[in-house]
Order: sequence, then structure tokens, then C-alpha cells
Amino acid sequence: MYHQPSQRTSYGAPSHRYSQSRPHGYAPPPPAGSPYPPQQLHHRPSQSQSSAHGGAPDQARLWQWFCQVDTDRSGEISVNELHAALINGDWSRFDIDTVKMLMGMFDVDRSGTIGFNEFQGLWKYIVDWQKAFKYFDRDGSGTIDGHELANALQNFGYNLSPTLMSLIEQKYAPAPIAGGGPKPGITFDRFVRACVLVRTLTEAFKTRDTDHDGWIQVNYEDFMVMVLSAP
Amino acid sequence: MYHQPSQRTSYGAPSHRYSQSRPHGYAPPPPAGSPYPPQQLHHRPSQSQSSAHGGAPDQARLWQWFCQVDTDRSGEISVNELHAALINGDWSRFDIDTVKMLMGMFDVDRSGTIGFNEFQGLWKYIVDWQKAFKYFDRDGSGTIDGHELANALQNFGYNLSPTLMSLIEQKYAPAPIAGGGPKPGITFDRFVRACVLVRTLTEAFKTRDTDHDGWIQVNYEDFMVMVLSAP
Repeated sequence: MYHQPSQRTSYGAPSHRYSQSRPHGYAPPPPAGSPYPPQQLHHRPSQSQSSAHGGAPDQARLWQWFCQVDTDRSGEISVNELHAALINGDWSRFDIDTVKMLMGMFDVDRSGTIGFNEFQGLWKYIVDWQKAFKYFDRDGSGTIDGHELANALQNFGYNLSPTLMSLIEQKYAPAPIAGGGPKPGITFDRFVRACVLVRTLTEAFKTRDTDHDGWIQVNYEDFMVMVLSAP
Repeated sequence: MYHQPSQRTSYGAPSHRYSQSRPHGYAPPPPAGSPYPPQQLHHRPSQSQSSAHGGAPDQARLWQWFCQVDTDRSGEISVNELHAALINGDWSRFDIDTVKMLMGMFDVDRSGTIGFNEFQGLWKYIVDWQKAFKYFDRDGSGTIDGHELANALQNFGYNLSPTLMSLIEQKYAPAPIAGGGPKPGITFDRFVRACVLVRTLTEAFKTRDTDHDGWIQVNYEDFMVMVLSAP
């Protein structure tokens, strides 16, 4: 758990538009007596406004960043401009699927682009995730390994089995380096996508698990909708 | 349907290791009297051996291609070498997720690399998909639009609802171009991934739908395994 020096709080994953609720745990069937949602998990919007240097960026600064991303000076950021602008700590580009996920979250007016108002939400979201990433990258390697990912998801309230953790790591980490050596870790953008996937699928499952027994009955159409709606 | 001049056959999606069965339709609950699996769908391994010029490439030619991809001359193709080698018709690189999917299918000995024997299977698979892509790209645009994708999936036996088709197109097509204009189509590698996803999820669902009524009962763990095991 990530305890603030003077507060009993844990780091919460930034909230997103798929769900208005705060991050919470889900390990069906929930063990007796487990907090649901866990009391220690919450999003801290007051802190997430702050910049990497501790202060909230003013509008002028944000506008400057917006203009840097808006390379064709159209006044709107396209998916390609966003793709060109977003870089992981190892200088790799974000996957186009992560960029599309972000566009889907913050292109509120469905114009196909991000205006300045929408950019402010997007900027805050990325900064929040950068903080989470930095916090959970315990060894400071710049990527998230399987253990760090498990720790992050547990902190966000997802107590997943070793089987699921292994599948998630396999899906989001680069393929192992040939000839052995340490497994390369998960980059920032894929870490965010992994967490959002777990959250989206869990929410979709919970919505259908009306009697909270950890089981759902689902038809093919709805099953496919659940999966295809996730990032 | 794709009728051979003298045969009543349709183009079948290349088979892959997730399932040994040939492509087939699934529209639960199946309408009365529908063929299951449809008689007109089958994979044609005899043709899929042929190269783009109609003849099967000899071992020497395949070895030459293998060596071109194996840039570090290790005798094995790594995921990065494969990623560098695989290019769509529009010169974009394959997504790393498609490359990982291919590695997962053809790295039979789980060495983390593709040896020459494994490369032959991979090569055949890609050539088969190239043929399918070329066939279903009816307007010759070099990408697959929503209508062409629906046609392809229907030929492979997947009669999906407009809702599902729209979700798949949304997931695998690039984001729409700002300011209108024609929607950009799905590139080759994402077309393959979309088809493999539909097939993998459908197979996973069918395996659990033991009474064939189009409904399954699934717990959280198994639901997540179904989704996370798909590409």
C-alpha cells in the first residue's frame, strides 16, 4: 500500500469515463468480511491536478503544450498528432491502440479530435498515470515487471489469481528476449492499457453479476460486446 | 461467397494453432436449418502452399527469406527481427501485438524465437492471409473497410450483428480522419488480428456452450481467462 506520510490512503488509479465510480476491489466470490469497495482505495483529485513539479500548470502553460502537439495548427489535436506526441520513458511511441483508447475517453464531443478543453482532461489523466507508474516502478527500471504490476492492480483493488496475472503480463509485456536474460518490463502506455482493460472488463462483469455471486449468464452477442468494448 | 471457377468453395481463413477445427459459422442460437458448420466453408491447404506467383517456393528460396529476416545471423528470428521485417501494404509496420500473436502461434518449441522449421509455417500462414486480404479488399484500396470486413467474416462463417461489426471496425480501423472524409480502412495486420480475435473468442464461447443454446454461465476467473487468452 502507498501510505502518504500523514494520511492512511493508497494510490488510486486515475478514474476514466468508462465508469464514474472510483477504483475498487473485485475478487469473486468476495471473501467474507472483505471491504467492498475497500476503504483504503480512492482517487485523489486534489493531488492529481498538480504538475510533476508539484504545482498545477496554468492555462498558458497548458495552451503552450497543446500548441506543441497540434502541429498542423488546426486548433484541434488529431489521433496522428497525439500518436506523434506521446512517448514512453524508453522513447518508444505509444501503441496506436492506447492513443485510440485515450481519444475515445477524452473526445467528449465525438468530433474525432481533441480540443483544448478536452486536452486539459487528457493531460491530467496522463499525469495521474505517470505518478502511478513512477510509484509502482519500485526498482526504478522505467518499466513495470510482473511483480510490480501485481502490486499496482492489488492497490487498485483487483485481487487477481496468478493465472490471470501471468496472462496479463504475457499480453502487455514485450516478448521475452531470446537466449534468456531478464524479461523486459511493460512500458508506460501498455501499463495504462492493461489497468484500464482489467477495470473495464471487471466493471462489465459486475454490471451483469446482479446477485454478486461471481457468476454471470451471458449470451454470445453480449459476451462479444463486453470484450469488444474493452480497450 | 468466393466461388472457384469450377468448385463450389469459399475462401476459408487460414487455420491457426488455437484450434484445429476449420473455420465455421456461429450465430447463437443457430437458426433452424442452417448448415453447421456451413458446407461451403473450408480451408484449402493445397492452394495455400503456393506462392504469390502460383508455385510453391522451394526450400532454398525460403531459406533466403529466413536469412533476410534474421538480421543478426543467429539462426533464429527474434520478435524484434520479425517486427522489423513485417510491413503492411501502406508501409506501416505490423503492430507489436500482431507480431506477438504470430510468435505465439508459430514458436512451437517455446524458445522465444522462430527457427527455420517454424518459419515455414509462419510464412505459409501469412501468404494465406495475404490472399484472403487481397480477395476481400474488393475495391483494391489496400485496406479493408467495414463492408469488406463484414463480407470476410461472413465468408469465414461468422454471422455477426451490426453492433458487433461496428465494434470490431471501431477497434481495428484507425481513428476517423478529422473533418470528415472517407474512413481509413483496416490494414493487413490488424485485419488478421481482428479475424483471429473473433475466431478465438467464438471458439472459447462454444467450448463452454455445451448445450448449444447460445448462452454460457461463467465465473469471473474463467471470463477473464477467455478474454486475456485472445490476441
